[in-house]
Order: sequence, then C-alpha cells, then structure tokens
Amino acid sequence: MRVTIVGLGLIGGSIGLALRGIDGWLVTGWDQDPEAVAGALARGAIAEAATDIAAAARGADIVLIATPPLAMRQVFTALGPHLRPGAVVTDVASTKSQVVDWAQELLPEHVAFIGGHPLAGSEQSGIAHARADLLRGAVYCLTPADGVPAEAMRSVEALVAATGSRPLRLAPAAHDAALAAVSHLPFLLSAALVAATTGDPRWPAMAPLAATGYRDVTRLGSGDPDMHRDICLSNAAAIRPWLAAMARELATLADRLEDPEHLTAYFHGARDQRNEWLQSREELQTK
Amino acid sequence: MRVTIVGLGLIGGSIGLALRGIDGWLVTGWDQDPEAVAGALARGAIAEAATDIAAAARGADIVLIATPPLAMRQVFTALGPHLRPGAVVTDVASTKSQVVDWAQELLPEHVAFIGGHPLAGSEQSGIAHARADLLRGAVYCLTPADGVPAEAMRSVEALVAATGSRPLRLAPAAHDAALAAVSHLPFLLSAALVAATTGDPRWPAMAPLAATGYRDVTRLGSGDPDMHRDICLSNAAAIRPWLAAMARELATLADRLEDPEHLTAYFHGARDQRNEWLQSREELQTK
Repeated sequence: MRVTIVGLGLIGGSIGLALRGIDGWLVTGWDQDPEAVAGALARGAIAEAATDIAAAARGADIVLIATPPLAMRQVFTALGPHLRPGAVVTDVASTKSQVVDWAQELLPEHVAFIGGHPLAGSEQSGIAHARADLLRGAVYCLTPADGVPAEAMRSVEALVAATGSRPLRLAPAAHDAALAAVSHLPFLLSAALVAATTGDPRWPAMAPLAATGYRDVTRLGSGDPDMHRDICLSNAAAIRPWLAAMARELATLADRLEDPEHLTAYFHGARDQRNEWLQSREELQTK
Repeated sequence: MRVTIVGLGLIGGSIGLALRGIDGWLVTGWDQDPEAVAGALARGAIAEAATDIAAAARGADIVLIATPPLAMRQVFTALGPHLRPGAVVTDVASTKSQVVDWAQELLPEHVAFIGGHPLAGSEQSGIAHARADLLRGAVYCLTPADGVPAEAMRSVEALVAATGSRPLRLAPAAHDAALAAVSHLPFLLSAALVAATTGDPRWPAMAPLAATGYRDVTRLGSGDPDMHRDICLSNAAAIRPWLAAMARELATLADRLEDPEHLTAYFHGARDQRNEWLQSREELQTK
C-alpha cells in the first residue's frame, strides 16, 4: 500500500514512524516546510519525499493529510486534480464536520474521503517530537461519508491498525459534539487558567507557589496555538454551550463554597466519576 | 531531634520516610486510624508509635501535624496541655490563616507555632502512597507568627531541609491568597470539568472519546474530597473572586470564539506565559 503523508508534524510524523517497520507499506511524504521534510527523512518517518503536492497525490493509494485543519481546504484543492481513481483520502483533523464538507466540495468523485481523528497528541508539536508509539492504544475516530466503498474503509482501517490504535466509527457531527466537551473545553480551560493567573498583577508573587497541580491543569495551555485556534473556529457552535455550562458550574460552586455537605458530595462525586471513567478507559485499552 | 508526626497519611508518611535515613532525627507517630499507624510502622515512616495523643505530645521537640485541615482544631486542643515548654508545633495544611488563628487561640504560650505547607502532593492519598522523595525539590511554605523564637524557626527549617524541599517564608494571608489562584482554583476547575461532562446525559457517548487531555486537566478531580472541602471552607473568601474571574474569562472566550486574531493572540500568550513559568520553576529547582 502506497501511503502519502501530507504534513509532517507530530501526528503525520508519528504515523510515518509507526508504519515504518511494517511490511507492505511504502510511505512518501510532503510538507510545505523543507525542514519538516528533511526531519522526516532523517528520522525515517518517510521513505521518500515527494517533489511537489501533485507528485505526492499521483502515486498514492492512500493520502493522509496531517496539516493544521484550516490548511486542509487548500490541500484538497491542490491534490484533487492529481489523485488517481479509487484513491482514498483521509485526514487527522481534530474537528470533522467542516473537513467532510470541504472534501465533498473539493475532491473529485472518483476518490473516497474518510475523515479521521486519532485521539492522541502532546502539548509538543513538530516532527522532532514524533514517536512510533504515539498512537498506540488510542482511539482513532473514523467518520466515513455515506456510500464510501467498503474497500476504501478497509484500507484506512488497516492503516489505523498499523499504528496500534483502535478505530471507532461515528458521524462527523457526533464526533464534534463529543470532542467539544472532552477535548476542546479542557484545552480552553487550561489556556484560560494561564491567562487569568498570569494576567493578574499579583502573578510575580504567586508564580513561585504554583506547583504540580497548576502544571498539570495548565498543560494543554502549552499546546499548538494555531491548532487550538483552528479547532475553535471550526467547532465554535459546539464549544460555546460548554463554556457557558462551565461558567454556570463555577458560579454554583462560588455560591456553595461554604456549604460542607454540598462540597463533600461534589468532590466525592467528581472523584468517583473520574475514577469510573479511568477504569473503563483501561478496560478498553487492554481489550 | 525528636519529631512526632500526628496524621500518618500521604504527607505525614512521606516526611517520616524522608527523615528516616538521616542521623539525629527520631520519628514517632500517631494517627486516630490504627491501620495508618500499622502502615507507617511497616513502611518505616515512623520508628515508634505513640500510645495516645498525650504521649505523642509529651516527648516531642517538634510536633508536625499532618491531619486534614479541619481536624486540626481538635488536635491542637488535645495536644496543648501535654506539650513541653519550648516545643515547636508545625503543620502541613493547605491553607494557613485559619490554622494560625487556631494555634494562637488553643496552644499554650510556652510553645512556638510555625505554620507550614509543602507544595507537593498527589491525587492519591494515604500512607500506602507515601514516598521518601515526595517533597524533594518542592517549595515548603513557612508562615511563622510575629515573635517566634529564632531557634524554633531553625528547627523547622532543618526539618524542611531534611525532606529535600526549599523553605519559603511568607505571611499566612499572602499564602492563602496566592494558593487560591494557583492551587485551589485548579482543583476546582478539575472537579467542575468532571461534574459538567459526566453529569451530561450525553456522557456515555462522549466517555470513549475522552483521552489524555481530559485525563490531565481532570487529574486533581481525583484528589482527596475531604481535603478539597476543608480547603474551600477555610479559604472561601480568597477563592470566590478567582471563580468569578474564571467565569468572566470563559464568557469572553465564548464571545471571541470566531475571532481568529483574538484566538491566535490568546493561545500564543497562554503558551508563552506557561513556558516562562515552567522555565523559572526549573531554574529554582536546580538552584
């Protein structure tokens, strides 16, 4: 299977590294940044570099697009005319409805598009941080459009399996609604906590007292700013009600901050619910 | 130096383990839970167990109280009559103003009280999770009352040094104000994120899509519920404005969620500020 990875950052590079040792996969890569291409070649994430995006499209059975979400429209336009009939296009963007719409609009009818989103990442970005095992054990969402050929689906599922992650098929809108709560809201909270604390005039006196708790809750605040921006722009309608829900949650907490029974129930509930989620996650991963 | 640790949980046990191998420290322990005492003896966190709280008080040069904050009032009352003149009492509670007031009210005049708070912890609790290196490299806040004898201060600083942490002296109110922002607000956000997401009727469909980002931002939500409750109760006035500030921060974000320039600046700012803090923290720790 000839795979072309367009966008050789953390995720594209990690998928390349995962496929590297596996028989039957030939990985070509392209990135607009020559340094990313050089890095991917040096690290063995790609076996060869395409000379341009047309060449990247031409030879491929599967084109995997791992650029920032908002670059994807342009990538579809550039790739489209050069894709062979029967080729499969997939992506790794963090939001899916917009990408699926663009694919429908911009890709030729003789190629199959299957949206993808591996639920793995890091607050670090770039090919230098790519790792062969980044996706291992992760859920890999797939959002095929209606009527996608079964063979195309099998190809993408084989690629997902090769990364060591587990495919989960769902509708684009369902994906985006869920991710707004469990992924986008968390990174917004992380960034907002950094902004609220470091923006305070008292920050210099507070900074030495910030410890591991602050570090962990703000970790996503160090994530790729452009990716976070693109996610907000492409999923604003789903994210906004969650920001409002959190603001309400915090207002209620402020009201009940001296109510011992309420607080006891609240913190026990949070711990129990989180531990239940952690356990179900572990069970899924060891399946 | 004869140290008695009252409260043999994660922090009390870890301090005991840290002192264990160091010449000149004899560590006795007491806990109302016989299983915690047995665990501390078995793990070597204490060399001997006091038979009751009066005995725990009697022999000690330093009494370190590592119970939940709201139990401390009762512990002061029970210890007070049995402390020898010149004994030093210190604690590890996460909030300091209330404890300092209680000490002034309840401890005899012939003992010195020096409030303490090691900025180290874990979302796990109990003697089973205690570790000799839990405090290593951490900041250890000390909030001595005015007029505390220099000798008492030196004793507590020696204890802090023995745990491998760095003493930072500040006023109780300044401690509580800073911790409200960099410690209490983060655990409230963690718990609130768990409550808002798991309390939603769509949670069962969303749960499999929650990944490492959700796990990390919610980590503090698995912390000790009683400790979190006691912190809120004893520091509500300092915490409440931060909950309001976060709610405002989220409302502004909701308004600007489709404004690319705003989002770009916001996420770059958060990343830069957080990385700057991480770097200053690293420099402090390697000093």
